[in-house]
Amino acid sequence: MKIALLGGTGNLGEGLALRWGKLGYEIIVGSRKLEKAEKLASDYLKKVGDASIIGMRNEDAAETCDVAVFTIPWEFAFDTAEMLKRQLAGKVVISPLVPMKKVGDNFVYVRPEEGSAAEKLASVLEESSVVAAYHSIPARRFANLGEEFEWDVPICGDSGAKEVVVDLTEKISGLRALDAGGLSNAHLVESLTPLILNVMKRNKTGELGISFR
Amino acid sequence: MKIALLGGTGNLGEGLALRWGKLGYEIIVGSRKLEKAEKLASDYLKKVGDASIIGMRNEDAAETCDVAVFTIPWEFAFDTAEMLKRQLAGKVVISPLVPMKKVGDNFVYVRPEEGSAAEKLASVLEESSVVAAYHSIPARRFANLGEEFEWDVPICGDSGAKEVVVDLTEKISGLRALDAGGLSNAHLVESLTPLILNVMKRNKTGELGISFR
Repeated sequence: MKIALLGGTGNLGEGLALRWGKLGYEIIVGSRKLEKAEKLASDYLKKVGDASIIGMRNEDAAETCDVAVFTIPWEFAFDTAEMLKRQLAGKVVISPLVPMKKVGDNFVYVRPEEGSAAEKLASVLEESSVVAAYHSIPARRFANLGEEFEWDVPICGDSGAKEVVVDLTEKISGLRALDAGGLSNAHLVESLTPLILNVMKRNKTGELGISFR
Repeated sequence: MKIALLGGTGNLGEGLALRWGKLGYEIIVGSRKLEKAEKLASDYLKKVGDASIIGMRNEDAAETCDVAVFTIPWEFAFDTAEMLKRQLAGKVVISPLVPMKKVGDNFVYVRPEEGSAAEKLASVLEESSVVAAYHSIPARRFANLGEEFEWDVPICGDSGAKEVVVDLTEKISGLRALDAGGLSNAHLVESLTPLILNVMKRNKTGELGISFR
């Protein structure tokens, strides 16, 4: 299975590339610039050794992949989605997007008119199957292959695509996928990110994931 | 310290009564009817043995207590608050309220105009210090004294009252209190309840709490 990490330049993209790459998935790191994508792919490859990780421009990554992850800051994600509409038609698209702003030292969830970032993304990518996941994964810790964890990943989606994402998630050691309902529930999951960030900041902890127990 | 569990007839009220009662706090179980309050207080007392747990009508419980918990279904909570305004002035009031409805088999958070149930409660109880807490405690498990757990309790509040609630929470073995910001963040915490309920229902787990790790 070919997985594209669109704009996969942040820690979540890196973590997914490394961890899925190690498992034998064919990883495509996408970026606006080919050189940047290739540089990142080669950096990631050095960290995992034997894996298939290549770089492509976002358009080519979207065209080539079976599953795409929008590891893009939410402010830019919807414009990128407009551009990649055709290439992503018929594919599974994972939204870890969290529309959020900082007011003072406080993180605030900015709920989109469409109900959630995932629903907004789905309204642009009408022919793709959008699934919301990975909002509560502490990205820096996740990108560090030495890190051990036991985190839960609530996942929202309406179609069989959700099962694809549940399966991809469970493959990663230390992650447990939990069905959190349809895409109309995605705002409940996206809201976890500002909650977790506020908890981290105010209690001076390191990065935190969540588990249901 | 005298703690009133207003309408404290549900599992959360019972759990708090038993666990704080065992710790030596003076517990007042409040209900609309005195007989019901007294019956519950005597039932709780049998479960913990040596403790101070008495029953009173809600008005008297609110008058007598230092801290009150609104263990009342959210639909009735604001009317009750109107009635107890005077008695609760100057006191710490804990809101575990979650405005929620079920649509099909799905739980939906019904965000109040005021921003959250806690903020709505604070708008009624203008002279009290409202603190939001205990939304993610699985009530039936919590009411069972044999149950062991390690759950986190995100707490929102604007005043020093938050520290009182953090302290009361930490006293209960197995609960860790986490500062989750001001009352304007309470909707992020209240949203946890429908999220957790949907996860439980769809993944056929038993009751679940959460932990940040």
